[in-house]
Amino acid sequence: MQDMDADYEIPQLYKRHVFACYTQRPPGHPRGSCGALGAQPLWDRLGKAIESQGLTDTGFTAAGCLGFCKAGPLMVVYPEGIWYRPTTSEDIDEIVESHFKQGKRVDRLVMVLTRS
Amino acid sequence: MQDMDADYEIPQLYKRHVFACYTQRPPGHPRGSCGALGAQPLWDRLGKAIESQGLTDTGFTAAGCLGFCKAGPLMVVYPEGIWYRPTTSEDIDEIVESHFKQGKRVDRLVMVLTRS
Repeated sequence: MQDMDADYEIPQLYKRHVFACYTQRPPGHPRGSCGALGAQPLWDRLGKAIESQGLTDTGFTAAGCLGFCKAGPLMVVYPEGIWYRPTTSEDIDEIVESHFKQGKRVDRLVMVLTRS
Repeated sequence: MQDMDADYEIPQLYKRHVFACYTQRPPGHPRGSCGALGAQPLWDRLGKAIESQGLTDTGFTAAGCLGFCKAGPLMVVYPEGIWYRPTTSEDIDEIVESHFKQGKRVDRLVMVLTRS
């Protein structure tokens, strides 16, 4: 049986890993969706910014439904566990510049979510 | 302008958040995929275990391609940043019991990935 104790550190693949919800439900769907709230062009911009600015330490992955569908567009940044709700291109650019490049959370875009 | 300093802690939505790759490429595709490597029944088992065992502090989200497609099926657990490659139902059950319930990493299933 393997040693179950985490007695050494696993090197981290990314400094940060971003997951962005790409769920698209049709117009009028009662749950709504990040896609219906305009997520896709925002995530496209985000992915391109990460790539074009050479932020190789920042992972970017498309996610399925993250829950909280009315609160979208939603993305979450780990390991910090920070949830953001950007709605404009400028919001995306600020997250990239402030959080990903300078390490400073963008408080005005943070969503504080709680399990009910 | 908002205060850019993270001078207070944001409460965490989940103790852990699991992202599992659901990418399915057709048989013979040169990149391969987690789906082609048998991911889906494993993730189905994982999602059901989290729900049925009442692990409400463990988030579970379907992810798009996480990269490292030949190394799948791949899942990653945050905030720890631990990547696992389970291949059997028993592997899934061990991750749930050991990592999610007891907080002990399952070293034999860890994938140490590096950006080249």
